[in-house]
Amino acid sequence: MTHSQLTTITEADIDDIAIGAAVLGTGGGGDPHVGSLHAKRAIRLHGDVRVLQVADLDPEGLVVPIGMIGAPSVSIERIAGDAEIGRALDLLEQATGRTVAAIMPIEIGGGNSLIPIAAAAERGLPIVDGDAMGRAFPEAQMVTFHLAGYGPGATVLVDAQGNAVLSYPVNGAWSERLARVLTFEMGGSATMIDYAYPGAVVQECAIPGTLTMAREIGGMLRSQALRDDERIDAMLARLGGFRLFDGKVTEIERVVDGGFTRGRAELAGTGVDRGSRFELSFQNEMLLATRDGEVAAVTPDLIAVLDQATGHPITTETLRYGARVTVVAFPCHPQWRTERGIETAGPAYFGYDVPFTPVEALAAEAAPRMEKAA
Amino acid sequence: MTHSQLTTITEADIDDIAIGAAVLGTGGGGDPHVGSLHAKRAIRLHGDVRVLQVADLDPEGLVVPIGMIGAPSVSIERIAGDAEIGRALDLLEQATGRTVAAIMPIEIGGGNSLIPIAAAAERGLPIVDGDAMGRAFPEAQMVTFHLAGYGPGATVLVDAQGNAVLSYPVNGAWSERLARVLTFEMGGSATMIDYAYPGAVVQECAIPGTLTMAREIGGMLRSQALRDDERIDAMLARLGGFRLFDGKVTEIERVVDGGFTRGRAELAGTGVDRGSRFELSFQNEMLLATRDGEVAAVTPDLIAVLDQATGHPITTETLRYGARVTVVAFPCHPQWRTERGIETAGPAYFGYDVPFTPVEALAAEAAPRMEKAA
Repeated sequence: MTHSQLTTITEADIDDIAIGAAVLGTGGGGDPHVGSLHAKRAIRLHGDVRVLQVADLDPEGLVVPIGMIGAPSVSIERIAGDAEIGRALDLLEQATGRTVAAIMPIEIGGGNSLIPIAAAAERGLPIVDGDAMGRAFPEAQMVTFHLAGYGPGATVLVDAQGNAVLSYPVNGAWSERLARVLTFEMGGSATMIDYAYPGAVVQECAIPGTLTMAREIGGMLRSQALRDDERIDAMLARLGGFRLFDGKVTEIERVVDGGFTRGRAELAGTGVDRGSRFELSFQNEMLLATRDGEVAAVTPDLIAVLDQATGHPITTETLRYGARVTVVAFPCHPQWRTERGIETAGPAYFGYDVPFTPVEALAAEAAPRMEKAA
Repeated sequence: MTHSQLTTITEADIDDIAIGAAVLGTGGGGDPHVGSLHAKRAIRLHGDVRVLQVADLDPEGLVVPIGMIGAPSVSIERIAGDAEIGRALDLLEQATGRTVAAIMPIEIGGGNSLIPIAAAAERGLPIVDGDAMGRAFPEAQMVTFHLAGYGPGATVLVDAQGNAVLSYPVNGAWSERLARVLTFEMGGSATMIDYAYPGAVVQECAIPGTLTMAREIGGMLRSQALRDDERIDAMLARLGGFRLFDGKVTEIERVVDGGFTRGRAELAGTGVDRGSRFELSFQNEMLLATRDGEVAAVTPDLIAVLDQATGHPITTETLRYGARVTVVAFPCHPQWRTERGIETAGPAYFGYDVPFTPVEALAAEAAPRMEKAA
């Protein structure tokens, strides 16, 4: 475990990044296990991946976010092939008439943190230590580029059947609409590029250091040097987060609907939380957590579900009846707490009739309980 | 009225072409009135359109079919602006790296025979006297290029909101699937380019002379030199067609469903057909006609519904309860009667549990009735 900035990603880094990114993915972002197999294989075949800090980007160089779009329930079944990634990058280069200078994760979450590492390895390109969400979100316009007023630009979708689509949506909302129906028709999952911008724009918009952070917290959760109960606490300390609930899943509803995995889970408290009920609502990602009917954490803040036994994150897709879990939450990047950030990815956007309240304020309100739980 | 080949399309030709194309459009292909307004305006602003015979095409020159896709119920409400057409052609030129040499109607039906005339006028390009259906069909892969084994190639969709999509579908079926969901999401109607090929491929695949034919039969139906009852007979003689039924619409069901206008109409016989019932089924275009439960004509043969008073064609969109109509049918181009033609656009494809039987054979079976009706 190291706290230094990433400069190179080797095969040995992938498991840490995968676990850390699954926490930051708040249950979504695509399956981290599938993504890590892909990234490891690409590094084995093509070599280690050089990491560029956001501050060090060439302001003129084209930085290309690449990842998967669709319902995690589908992407878990099939992985983007090298051919899809190569085709998508080729099509973007053809459309823009420019050469890709660096790859970037569009979100730091689950598989979508690992697919870009694979893409960078395959193309011999560096990867940017940063992303456009600082977490994972379910919709394409939920990126910091959008918050800063940038449109999606030339947008590429490539599917496993060999179909390739290049679109120029008028704005982020249209990008999401068009990509979602296409992805659904393509079978529920596709490889996507959007918000490809020169380094200067990435420096203005990206949330820096998130691959380093993913590796760091993944390293904490996988550390042999820490006791079971110390691992989660170490991570919460690093992220300024809170332990919300210990419990057992007593009900889980999950449907693939309109290109998303949507659902909710109910938990019955265990240990210090015995006697309390907890509910999680998700659309690919965990979006709302309530304890005994009171909001405990809500989007755009991050909510993650961890396996009590291992401390490892559980995706919305793999959460199952009877699982014993610890639910944690931590503050989102400040960009998401602006008026435009809340409008774009706050509770009202997802149809939840609750105001956004920062998780640290909610935790303070619930202080007696939190102290008891600590 | 003239029987000579078109060499130039002037504003004065548009009404004849519109009426003739609406007959060949078998009820679909987009609204001919809206299309004719667009074509007339474009000719007025930009000048007459030169017509190229299929045989005279430069084998190397890129021929571009352009038209509208979507439910006629929607396209009747909004017309493709000049901006959409220009954007679509620009995007195709950018994607192929080639300059468009000529415009072609993808289908000779309704508005989709007139939009390409408008496009040609706006761009100062010639239009090809031919199309890829010899009629109108509801789905994108129902073209003679597909019958000959050619894929859709670079496919462009542009909508009224300003969204533009360039896709490379793996085959005609995927082109239809992707274009249909996009069109639906775009509001039900979009400007489309597909099957853009060099003149040599168009010479191999296109059905020649169909704009000339549309103008010719349109001229017959609009002729002041012919009596009311002579007009339809003149057209049927020209097309080798048959008068199937005179009747009154007693029931009409029509829904916009999955990007199509689908429905059926029931007719009660009038005049010589008194006492008989007739039924029409459509998906944008008229596809199946039955008389007292017996097939009278079926796709890919052409079925057209004409206003008894004027002899003018009625689209599936504007057919209304109480209308007094004459239903006619005529043989499709021989390419559609091949095994692949029937497989692509025959009754089984549309879910009708009847075999394809040529309309001339059906008419011969029904000869006693047809003679009585004549």
